Amino acid sequence: MSPLGARTAGPVHVVGTGLLGASAALALRARGVDVTLADPSPTAAALARDLGAGRLRARDEAPPALVVVAAPPDVTASVVAEQLQTWPEAVVTDVASVKLTVLTELRRLLAAGGADGGGAPEALARYVGSHPMAGRERSGAVAARGTLFAGRPWVLCPTPSSSPRALAAVRALADDLGAAPVVMEAGAHDEAVALVSHVPQVAASLVAARLRRAPEPAVELAGQGLRDVTRIAESDPALWVQILGANAGPVAAVLRDLRDDLDGVLAALEQLDRVEDAHDAAATSPGALAAVAQLIADGGAGRARVPGKHGSAPTSYAVVTVLVPDAPGELARLLHDVGAAGVNLEDLRLEHSPEQPVGLAEVSVLPAARTPLEAALRDLGWALVD
Amino acid sequence: MSPLGARTAGPVHVVGTGLLGASAALALRARGVDVTLADPSPTAAALARDLGAGRLRARDEAPPALVVVAAPPDVTASVVAEQLQTWPEAVVTDVASVKLTVLTELRRLLAAGGADGGGAPEALARYVGSHPMAGRERSGAVAARGTLFAGRPWVLCPTPSSSPRALAAVRALADDLGAAPVVMEAGAHDEAVALVSHVPQVAASLVAARLRRAPEPAVELAGQGLRDVTRIAESDPALWVQILGANAGPVAAVLRDLRDDLDGVLAALEQLDRVEDAHDAAATSPGALAAVAQLIADGGAGRARVPGKHGSAPTSYAVVTVLVPDAPGELARLLHDVGAAGVNLEDLRLEHSPEQPVGLAEVSVLPAARTPLEAALRDLGWALVD
Repeated sequence: MSPLGARTAGPVHVVGTGLLGASAALALRARGVDVTLADPSPTAAALARDLGAGRLRARDEAPPALVVVAAPPDVTASVVAEQLQTWPEAVVTDVASVKLTVLTELRRLLAAGGADGGGAPEALARYVGSHPMAGRERSGAVAARGTLFAGRPWVLCPTPSSSPRALAAVRALADDLGAAPVVMEAGAHDEAVALVSHVPQVAASLVAARLRRAPEPAVELAGQGLRDVTRIAESDPALWVQILGANAGPVAAVLRDLRDDLDGVLAALEQLDRVEDAHDAAATSPGALAAVAQLIADGGAGRARVPGKHGSAPTSYAVVTVLVPDAPGELARLLHDVGAAGVNLEDLRLEHSPEQPVGLAEVSVLPAARTPLEAALRDLGWALVD
Repeated sequence: MSPLGARTAGPVHVVGTGLLGASAALALRARGVDVTLADPSPTAAALARDLGAGRLRARDEAPPALVVVAAPPDVTASVVAEQLQTWPEAVVTDVASVKLTVLTELRRLLAAGGADGGGAPEALARYVGSHPMAGRERSGAVAARGTLFAGRPWVLCPTPSSSPRALAAVRALADDLGAAPVVMEAGAHDEAVALVSHVPQVAASLVAARLRRAPEPAVELAGQGLRDVTRIAESDPALWVQILGANAGPVAAVLRDLRDDLDGVLAALEQLDRVEDAHDAAATSPGALAAVAQLIADGGAGRARVPGKHGSAPTSYAVVTVLVPDAPGELARLLHDVGAAGVNLEDLRLEHSPEQPVGLAEVSVLPAARTPLEAALRDLGWALVD
């Protein structure tokens, strides 16, 4: 164990010093772990070094105990294979956002590596793929942060071939970086991220793409709903073509179901459009209206499963809404009063209209804390809205 | 002009005291305008009165100068027709989120109203439909805020029949409520909101609906991207069936284009899935990869057109991200320190991952305040992420 309590035994060799690799390296360095850096671009590796992410490997020094491959998805398998072969004792992980195609390709490469593929089982025992659910809008080492993984799920995908030592080493890495390790089979991981990450990306891009040739007065009517739905449409096409391409099967499966729902609502709207001249559309197409209502209701039911803070459903907290004067220190005073009431803030949202002298603070607390908190705040003179 | 500078001449009669009607009434009252209230539910009208939104009409009092109809979309036209006929001098507007079906239905009702439809042109001259681009997750008078419309676009849809007096009165209303009036033809409005509001709602519901039967470990991997894309999927099915039903044609037109794009990306992914066993998918299906990249790039181009808060680009505030221990009083201490640095908080977002002892507070400030604030917080020992 390092002087700073890290469970990861160094040296750790980070291959690929982009956002994820450099962030992992920075976090390890902050905990006193020895980190060496490599990147296909010597400039990128030197930049990460200059940012404090570690040092470049000297010739003939001791081999790494752990290798973290943070390469683009389409070259991850070959870099992992190369690292497993270069360091015959090291545990190797990668952080690519798809896992089954990487694993399949790695097995193929290792089997092809020797005349009889004899080294493959030994090498595979030292590999555990992983996927930290973390990222930023910006890329590269300059955007790297040692805190990038703090509080995020980090999926570990051991195979039946993986040794307990390898799994323990990768789990220790996730722990040391402040992430929450989750063990999952590679195929299950890929289906999960298709649903919670890749399909939402496609949907955001589909909606945003409709805006390209929209009249200017139309886009000027955009509100928070459109901003939220399309925020991730800003993502990098070069990266996403790799991610979607490497997870094509699971993403296509979800998109087919989504398209069936879309076809249903589209057929219903077209039916409603045809009867719109009649003034009692509701009477003439009850099935169509029901199909539209069902989609919105299904969406609400799905949305209710999206975890908020602490992994619970977003609706499990009670919300206390307080009027807060728009002046420095007022929100701090409110939160001080919340703390003084012995209530832990589960979530906070500040809603503020332009040019208005007050904001609305939506304070989420455990349901049992709601009534005592409201009483305490009222006693202290706060104006509650709800 | 009222003592508080309002341009709207009262009395204003608000018909429908839900979120929008009661919010408009509150804002007018705050500017000293005389407001009377009506609702099909006497309880709802009395509640709005008790919240300070105005008074109930007395028998035989002077007729209103302006009537604001804030009824559900499917009854808006008939309520507008009734109000035009009840008050032969009043200007009448409505705030329904679809405009062409309301106008078409209103014309039909007015033409059918007299034996020869002779009153229709006169009544139509006093009508200007409108649509304030404002709303909340919650509904009803208790959720009403006088500030609801501040800084929001308010679309005015005069017809060729509308009198200049009627347009001026509705424009004055929007001005008095702090909104930004935008004149648009009813059909153009409906096409615009199909694009920026109704299709995003359908897309959010489609993505969220896929989560209903997802395995629990999968939804636990959800991050901010999924949360943003699906936030508006929480909306009310009963309201949205009316909105989508009343704007079926324009929504269907956008959804057809979206489905064409979806079919394109789906075909590309299915092609990639078939060649995934080959280790050089990129070489065997360049067209498929290009199709996927094009969609993501198109989405980015569309997203770049979405205006941000206050109508400016989404990046108009600087965001300082601070690690906050998850304990009572810590966020209060941070915000106290922000206030003590003399910096006004423009927006605040608390991001917190499951089972972690720290949260990330994203503090939005004016760009010029960023560097001094970062220095001040670092001096006080806060860990900044950016």
